[in-house]
Amino acid sequence: MSMGTCEAVLQVLSGAVPRLLSSDLCSSNSDFVFSSKYHIRSVKKKGSRYLQSLKCSSMMRCQIGSYKCTRLVGGLDANTAIDRLKLLSCKCQQADRVSGVGMGDGNGAWFVDNAKKLNLNGSINSPNVLEFEDVEQLKREKEVSTSNGTAGTGTSTFHKASVDSIEDEAWGLLQDSMVYYCGSPIGTVAANDPTSSNVLNYDQVFIRDFIPSGIAFLLKGEYDIVRNFILHTLQLQSWEKTMDCHSPGQGLMPASFKVRTVPLDGDDSATEEVLDPDFGEAAIGRVAPVDSGLWWIILLRAYGKCSGDLSVQERVDVQTGIKMILRLCIADGFDMFPTLLVTDGSCMIDRRMGIHGHPLEIQALFYSALLCAREMLTPEDGSADLIRALNNRLVALSFHIREYYWIDMRKLNEIYRYKTEEYSYDAVNKFNIYPDQISPWLVEWMPNKGGYLIGNLQPAHMDFRFFSLGNLWAVVGGLATTDQSHAILDLIEAKWADLVTDMPFKICYPALEGQEWQIITGCDPKNTPWSYHNGGSWPTLLWQLTVACIKMNRPEIAAKAVSVAEKRISRDKWPEYYDTKKARFIGKQSRLFQTWSIAGYLVAKLLLADPNAAKILTTEEDSELVNAFSCMISANPRRKRGPKSLKQTYIV
Amino acid sequence: MSMGTCEAVLQVLSGAVPRLLSSDLCSSNSDFVFSSKYHIRSVKKKGSRYLQSLKCSSMMRCQIGSYKCTRLVGGLDANTAIDRLKLLSCKCQQADRVSGVGMGDGNGAWFVDNAKKLNLNGSINSPNVLEFEDVEQLKREKEVSTSNGTAGTGTSTFHKASVDSIEDEAWGLLQDSMVYYCGSPIGTVAANDPTSSNVLNYDQVFIRDFIPSGIAFLLKGEYDIVRNFILHTLQLQSWEKTMDCHSPGQGLMPASFKVRTVPLDGDDSATEEVLDPDFGEAAIGRVAPVDSGLWWIILLRAYGKCSGDLSVQERVDVQTGIKMILRLCIADGFDMFPTLLVTDGSCMIDRRMGIHGHPLEIQALFYSALLCAREMLTPEDGSADLIRALNNRLVALSFHIREYYWIDMRKLNEIYRYKTEEYSYDAVNKFNIYPDQISPWLVEWMPNKGGYLIGNLQPAHMDFRFFSLGNLWAVVGGLATTDQSHAILDLIEAKWADLVTDMPFKICYPALEGQEWQIITGCDPKNTPWSYHNGGSWPTLLWQLTVACIKMNRPEIAAKAVSVAEKRISRDKWPEYYDTKKARFIGKQSRLFQTWSIAGYLVAKLLLADPNAAKILTTEEDSELVNAFSCMISANPRRKRGPKSLKQTYIV
Repeated sequence: MSMGTCEAVLQVLSGAVPRLLSSDLCSSNSDFVFSSKYHIRSVKKKGSRYLQSLKCSSMMRCQIGSYKCTRLVGGLDANTAIDRLKLLSCKCQQADRVSGVGMGDGNGAWFVDNAKKLNLNGSINSPNVLEFEDVEQLKREKEVSTSNGTAGTGTSTFHKASVDSIEDEAWGLLQDSMVYYCGSPIGTVAANDPTSSNVLNYDQVFIRDFIPSGIAFLLKGEYDIVRNFILHTLQLQSWEKTMDCHSPGQGLMPASFKVRTVPLDGDDSATEEVLDPDFGEAAIGRVAPVDSGLWWIILLRAYGKCSGDLSVQERVDVQTGIKMILRLCIADGFDMFPTLLVTDGSCMIDRRMGIHGHPLEIQALFYSALLCAREMLTPEDGSADLIRALNNRLVALSFHIREYYWIDMRKLNEIYRYKTEEYSYDAVNKFNIYPDQISPWLVEWMPNKGGYLIGNLQPAHMDFRFFSLGNLWAVVGGLATTDQSHAILDLIEAKWADLVTDMPFKICYPALEGQEWQIITGCDPKNTPWSYHNGGSWPTLLWQLTVACIKMNRPEIAAKAVSVAEKRISRDKWPEYYDTKKARFIGKQSRLFQTWSIAGYLVAKLLLADPNAAKILTTEEDSELVNAFSCMISANPRRKRGPKSLKQTYIV
Repeated sequence: MSMGTCEAVLQVLSGAVPRLLSSDLCSSNSDFVFSSKYHIRSVKKKGSRYLQSLKCSSMMRCQIGSYKCTRLVGGLDANTAIDRLKLLSCKCQQADRVSGVGMGDGNGAWFVDNAKKLNLNGSINSPNVLEFEDVEQLKREKEVSTSNGTAGTGTSTFHKASVDSIEDEAWGLLQDSMVYYCGSPIGTVAANDPTSSNVLNYDQVFIRDFIPSGIAFLLKGEYDIVRNFILHTLQLQSWEKTMDCHSPGQGLMPASFKVRTVPLDGDDSATEEVLDPDFGEAAIGRVAPVDSGLWWIILLRAYGKCSGDLSVQERVDVQTGIKMILRLCIADGFDMFPTLLVTDGSCMIDRRMGIHGHPLEIQALFYSALLCAREMLTPEDGSADLIRALNNRLVALSFHIREYYWIDMRKLNEIYRYKTEEYSYDAVNKFNIYPDQISPWLVEWMPNKGGYLIGNLQPAHMDFRFFSLGNLWAVVGGLATTDQSHAILDLIEAKWADLVTDMPFKICYPALEGQEWQIITGCDPKNTPWSYHNGGSWPTLLWQLTVACIKMNRPEIAAKAVSVAEKRISRDKWPEYYDTKKARFIGKQSRLFQTWSIAGYLVAKLLLADPNAAKILTTEEDSELVNAFSCMISANPRRKRGPKSLKQTYIV
């Protein structure tokens, strides 16, 4: 371990020390005094924990380092041994750590009073603590939260211990899910369900599934696994991938990979480990994973920001990797829209669900990845064009989404009165939407306060369903404006009973039912109404919800959702998803011990404990973009059209 | 006019002289002796007509040439004057010409007997005449034709005169639809409906609408308008086109353009004409026209083959234009499929109709355009990579479509018994299709003999609707195998009552009805069941049907369809489309005097009169592709996957 990395660890960990939110976020209102005392106790403990965890972390890393040096490649057994060693050291660290985090029972009212009280005490004055303005802002949400929240249980002490053990268990499970390649950790398996005999592809490392695992490791100071993951998947990016002789673009990242032990070439007695990626050519339905590369860029930036180690993103091969992904995304296309055109099922919803075209999730990740990439690209001769294209796309994309994907009561009423069949440059109903498309559910569902970005926009087609990941990541990445971001959170609060219900968080709302389900999913028996992608509830979404809430300075929303999850998630064995409208059942075909359910919960907890750390994931709109944007709005679109050279000669 | 062009005209026209089919194709079986006599009479006349039309044609062209030289730019009035002049000379030519073409009443039985008789006579022995094998092949279709055909009217003489006047009228209308730019003809207006007050964009020159006009002009020896169209649209290709600050790829061809008279810069008293293209940024629904560039390439090749003037396709700017279109099409993408990914409504069906993704029509045009482009690209240093990419794509595309888009009774039964959720490289049900997707209509509709290419293939989605243009052009361009091509024509014959009905040709079958219409079209009031794109009947499709039938040596199918059209099309004033399941009504919002209805009819007539001329549109699979294809089939897909360099080193 180099000194540079050590310092980086130090820096990040020390940044995380003073955290008011961590200890108190989820305490019960009815346990007011305890909460306050507890805070002081936990702050004290944090000092010692910090030192201890740093020491622990260094040890751990050195062990891995020496392991690599001596090249003890021994396959799974050796790996498992190492795993256990690591697990031990982590557990020791864990046992101390969990005492620093809070508990919750879904009541947000405690927060404001508590924060105020502590502020008056003068006991907390670090920049990490929410300022008074924030507290005031939180206050305005109080009423909604309270009205939606369940009553305190009055058994907080018991509850705290139970929450501690949940987090403890989660860390243990996450460690168990780690996958090794030549002795180094490079990812986490999708699910580790001992009750399921049919493995399918759940024994692989999925790129998108690893993201919360990676973030959890980063927040924990375990950078190696993330670094290895980034560099190994980068190698896979340039594989030759073909299906029936056709190869997709070079920048494509695989959906998943698997570590296989195969006989060594030319030596039948020996074996070697190889990475076997799947770009969708073996996946059910043959879907290419458009989100993989975008998530990869987002994780790469988070790694740099969290570890302080910028050497990875500065590597020539990594820079090339970033550019390959970007080139694939911003390549010239036929489309009139700046949004990415993809086939159905090319993101988290990886089965047919009527999200072909320009689904919000992909656009939100695209925008976020473009901003992250721009931050990381090293200036060089060849990249000026790419940066220019990237900036243009950012401006066009944010305008397009903010303008055409946004709906709230005002916009909905406007659509309701649209004239159709307008042929002109200045048509109001640009996409020729028929007002009849506004479904009855939407008329009732849209709250007076709040709004959201629709799921998809195509010619004559607005998909009005609420897709959670797209909306949450539009907040995180800044694709939504500040007002829109607040309105999205307002809607989540107003529609708590539909979106959080008994288990956060609905992947989309509402479900497709009856003939709609038949036509749009093609009678998919896995995506029946209120199951799986079709209105199922996915615990992993907790982490994206948390990042979005923290960015908007409204962490109490996420804390409340986490406390809802905590009531069942461990008892239910960390399922992949829940079914029914109110998320009452564990999903029909849901795996248990699904890694990203575990990691998503952990990331949510870690970030609520240290809201400042969410900055490794959020991006802000810069002034340059804002200026370009306002220039665009004021420009006359007609003036911008015309032949490139005014003095053109037609040689006919 | 250069001597080279004159010679080319001569060459093409002389190639068209001996045409047995022209005079006899549609005579009535009941008028057997007349038919035979008539043939001899018409062959005699053709000799003199040939000379006369050549003279006429030269004169006409010289007039235009001199007009251009003296630069009499005088706006619309001058254009109209020229138009009239041309019209006159054309009418004179026309009046003579029409006596050389036949008539029809929908009975195909005459054909075989007649052809045999004439063959025995020895009166026809040119290579253009169908050989005996062809006649034998035609014979096997006789029974089907006869059973489907309507009985002869017994009023053939009257009918002949009426058909002559229909064709006469069509030529006049086509001439009237011509659009001039700076005094030269450059296209035809979409519709010239004097009864319609709402012009919308029907006064524009649409790229896809001009194709049958262009082919008609080519077959008539009027090359200038096609040449001008090709070169002017090429200029439009490189326009800066933006919508909300976003620009689609450079190779995009506009959907349409308009000639506008605008004040001259710096001189308020003078005006100039400008071409104003629409790339979809003003179109209803903002749909980008993916087919425009593909049709442009196909027309460019047809121009060269028909006129003999290869100087246009050899021009540097034209070569660049071809390459720009190709680069846009074969650019790296995320997709695992070799098919082009497009948004809904990006082709002839330019409104939302559930054809997003990989619609057959685009793939058929794509394949055809790739073959045409390969023929025309001049070898140069920079194009080797492009040619290689193009060849790879051709092989992968034809495999993909032939394998996965094809359905007949055998395949349908296979799908009906599919297992689902197969995760593996060698899954049978690669796209995870649920057998429940097989609609009840399809089970009944699929004939025992025959088959077709489905409309679209997506993950877990087969669009089983029959789309006519895609199937017909797959025959024309050779995307379908020879067996598949015959099976498509078999299906058309078997489903004559559904696809041709009272007016050829249904754009797709069946219509989306009820909730399917609501969900898939978004309640489009123009695309109600059995109207417009949703199961409407489009006379323009006659020409593509004719090319496909001639390519497969089964022209009698097309001839029969033409004779069905002739019963109503002129009387109904050449509508854009017909409604109802049996095409009984002129379409609800159908324009009258729609140019491509007129031109489509003319092309069908001209090609049936001279089947050999269809070669300017058809492409054949070459041996190189066939070899590559069989190599691919035999190769193990797993063996082809793997890291590019076997000796790769993971630098982590």
